[in-house]
Amino acid sequence: MTKSLIITAFITGGTTEWRYPGDTSYRFASNLEAWVEIAKLLEKGKIYALFIADHLTLFDVYKGPNNYRDAVKTGLNVPKADPSHAIITAARETKNISFGVTFSTVSEHPYLFARRLATLDHFTQGRVGWNIVTSYLNSIGTQHLNGEPFPEHDERYNRATEYVDVVSGLLLSTWRDDALIRDIQSGVFIDPDRVREINHNGKYFKVAGPSITQPSVQRIPLLIQAGTSKKGQELAAEFAEFVYVLGGTEELAPKINYIRTIAKEKFGRNSKNIKVIYSARVILGRTHDEAIEKEASYKKSEVPDRNAVNFEGVTGIDLNEYDSEEQIETKNVNGVKTTTEVYFKNAKKPTKNALLNKAPGAGPLMGTSEEVADKLEKLVEVLDLDGFNFNSAVLPGSVEDLVELLIPELQRRGLFWGDYAVPGGTFRENVYGVKGQTFLPPDHPLYDTRWTPDANKEKFDKIYEQNLERRKQARTSLN
Amino acid sequence: MTKSLIITAFITGGTTEWRYPGDTSYRFASNLEAWVEIAKLLEKGKIYALFIADHLTLFDVYKGPNNYRDAVKTGLNVPKADPSHAIITAARETKNISFGVTFSTVSEHPYLFARRLATLDHFTQGRVGWNIVTSYLNSIGTQHLNGEPFPEHDERYNRATEYVDVVSGLLLSTWRDDALIRDIQSGVFIDPDRVREINHNGKYFKVAGPSITQPSVQRIPLLIQAGTSKKGQELAAEFAEFVYVLGGTEELAPKINYIRTIAKEKFGRNSKNIKVIYSARVILGRTHDEAIEKEASYKKSEVPDRNAVNFEGVTGIDLNEYDSEEQIETKNVNGVKTTTEVYFKNAKKPTKNALLNKAPGAGPLMGTSEEVADKLEKLVEVLDLDGFNFNSAVLPGSVEDLVELLIPELQRRGLFWGDYAVPGGTFRENVYGVKGQTFLPPDHPLYDTRWTPDANKEKFDKIYEQNLERRKQARTSLN
Repeated sequence: MTKSLIITAFITGGTTEWRYPGDTSYRFASNLEAWVEIAKLLEKGKIYALFIADHLTLFDVYKGPNNYRDAVKTGLNVPKADPSHAIITAARETKNISFGVTFSTVSEHPYLFARRLATLDHFTQGRVGWNIVTSYLNSIGTQHLNGEPFPEHDERYNRATEYVDVVSGLLLSTWRDDALIRDIQSGVFIDPDRVREINHNGKYFKVAGPSITQPSVQRIPLLIQAGTSKKGQELAAEFAEFVYVLGGTEELAPKINYIRTIAKEKFGRNSKNIKVIYSARVILGRTHDEAIEKEASYKKSEVPDRNAVNFEGVTGIDLNEYDSEEQIETKNVNGVKTTTEVYFKNAKKPTKNALLNKAPGAGPLMGTSEEVADKLEKLVEVLDLDGFNFNSAVLPGSVEDLVELLIPELQRRGLFWGDYAVPGGTFRENVYGVKGQTFLPPDHPLYDTRWTPDANKEKFDKIYEQNLERRKQARTSLN
Repeated sequence: MTKSLIITAFITGGTTEWRYPGDTSYRFASNLEAWVEIAKLLEKGKIYALFIADHLTLFDVYKGPNNYRDAVKTGLNVPKADPSHAIITAARETKNISFGVTFSTVSEHPYLFARRLATLDHFTQGRVGWNIVTSYLNSIGTQHLNGEPFPEHDERYNRATEYVDVVSGLLLSTWRDDALIRDIQSGVFIDPDRVREINHNGKYFKVAGPSITQPSVQRIPLLIQAGTSKKGQELAAEFAEFVYVLGGTEELAPKINYIRTIAKEKFGRNSKNIKVIYSARVILGRTHDEAIEKEASYKKSEVPDRNAVNFEGVTGIDLNEYDSEEQIETKNVNGVKTTTEVYFKNAKKPTKNALLNKAPGAGPLMGTSEEVADKLEKLVEVLDLDGFNFNSAVLPGSVEDLVELLIPELQRRGLFWGDYAVPGGTFRENVYGVKGQTFLPPDHPLYDTRWTPDANKEKFDKIYEQNLERRKQARTSLN
């Protein structure tokens, strides 16, 4: 069966292989035009969305703790601008492409963040998604945010779940769709009976509401989750419409299955409405040899130590403890076991040398567009994927290759659309392929937390409480 | 002596008199184009900057506490979008106008906020200012930000001062101007010897640094302060390049004098580099009668209770305690005495009725452009002002009047420039009128906290410490 894939393109907002001739990734940290240009280029290829990672602090585990010198020297994820300030202009300069933006739940207070998220949805006219992450660099807490200890992994996820409750509550449950009436005659701007509080009083947050923002186009941006720890999978099963996955097929298959299973069994979701998107790095050539040569020249441009800085930052493993040819054990650091596994891909215990010679994340798929498309098809089949998120070795080069070489091949095979399903539409309309479907599908656990005109305040109070209770019970049943 | 005035235009991002025919202020909360359009219109009038207020929570003092129903009903400062997400696009769609954005020090953590501020400066190419405020609505803490008590006024200002130390330290003192070398040959992106920590360990914040952002065009946006309490004046004296003032001439004169005096005597500043800008509301007509008629029709459009919601929100005074014709006493609520005084203008104790029939802030200056310009000239003389910040009764109507009627008159009198001093330049270049002056002037207390290439790390460590010590001593000497 031919499946039409969702394709997104990934950038960090930092540099790719910046020594490679023509790489201009350094511009993202200071130049708005870099963001506009990449959005336009991706839209030419009918890419669903630009998916943007984020890092709040410098990678400082390598030769650390608190050694940011090597991150600085190698230009790994530093400097960085705030990506959320780039996408509105990029959206305005394009028509169809959406923007998946990473926001960590350890950063802004959810009351303030809800306003930011609504603003992005308003100003992009619904072309935005929120990638819910919990951060992993220990130093964010100890070094930068008042020296407070960084919560351990599972607690971060519990806190993240509560964070999503608050943000979604403010955005969906404090304003009825038709609250803003702007009645010139009576002088009523917003009907006060159509605005309510959530009075959230949880373990981590106490927020009354209502939101200061009016309902936005999608009411809540497309919900994205990218961690693949058990807690991350549970967060995804409850909330995520996109789940980004990374790694070897053997380890991924049960994880994807777990997400889909609990989404269905615990949260009552249609598992088709959880789009599983595989993060891949492709190196494309017009011939097989050209791709191989490209890979070699990227390697030649690599900055020494950069992979190690990244690896240690993400996993927390100190490579100094290993000899060059020694196999690296999977290690559970700060509870982030799965992030570590990602690096080991098919070989579960690579040598230190093998590790450092490999680019971060899954190894690249190399070849002509036909060869790469074959591999992608196989991955779709094995993992029952819904799409791919393509990393770039260099920018804008890798994205140009994606748009010029791979996309046409996928289109020829009927694996990718010829145009956006809903041109000029929202992120969600394009993802679900239905004009007018700007909101979550009815099977989504948050669906009935949206206050619609068919309920008055008293009736909706009950709906909201019941929904919260139901989701809390589902969470409890997972433990 | 003819003085060339600085002119800015003020908006809240919320509504003006929204019942008035043609008023489209409701668009700011959800429509990016509203921001682009007003920026273009103001640029036509060669206005220095759009000055944007901000409110994080709903006004809820009137008939309160925690009664937001009347704010909602009257549409007072609700709904609101996050204004900082609007200005980058507005800057890109214009060439010269700058944007003064209000950010409260009670909102984002300074480490995270520093990145946001740098991003705005990068992406607007230096056309941004930061209006440093400390918020006043008690409910922001108790209702929305985890129920924590809101710090009292003076403590908020102490915290704000420390907040500026952290933000300015991260932006100015952690990256040397020439840190980012991007040396393809050696593979060094940033010279690690040109990046340092601030290791701030204060009463309210503990932040190591460095900033994750590279030095931006202005290094730090133009610094603006708008409170006129004693603590606010001291913050202004140390940091502000623009000081916004509001109120009657009798009360303002000694305040302005205090700021200029301590700026000079305690912080060693050239008081000419503190631009005092008076917030005024003007109602302009082509004839005197037309202006009077306009005022009357604005009044007719007023929403009942809206002024009271605003007054009580800003001052904390409960008007229910007063009869209609009773004089309102100045009251010190949460330590915000001066904010209260602002409302009393020349009459120190107006009746409740007089108060509620008057629009927020200083009363309007009405008449033809000649008449209003006369009044403005007189204010400049009496208060030794550097400029005006014009409020709008309706939008875009009031701004159209400003650009079409008043600006040409001020230009005729030689009171306003015929064009931007540095077209396409930064906010600061235009304010100081010097091409290339993107940074603070040498007499500014933060001037030598900028790490320039003439100091290595050891030398700069000392400069930085000495600067901090000097400023702390100046602060202590004020108490």
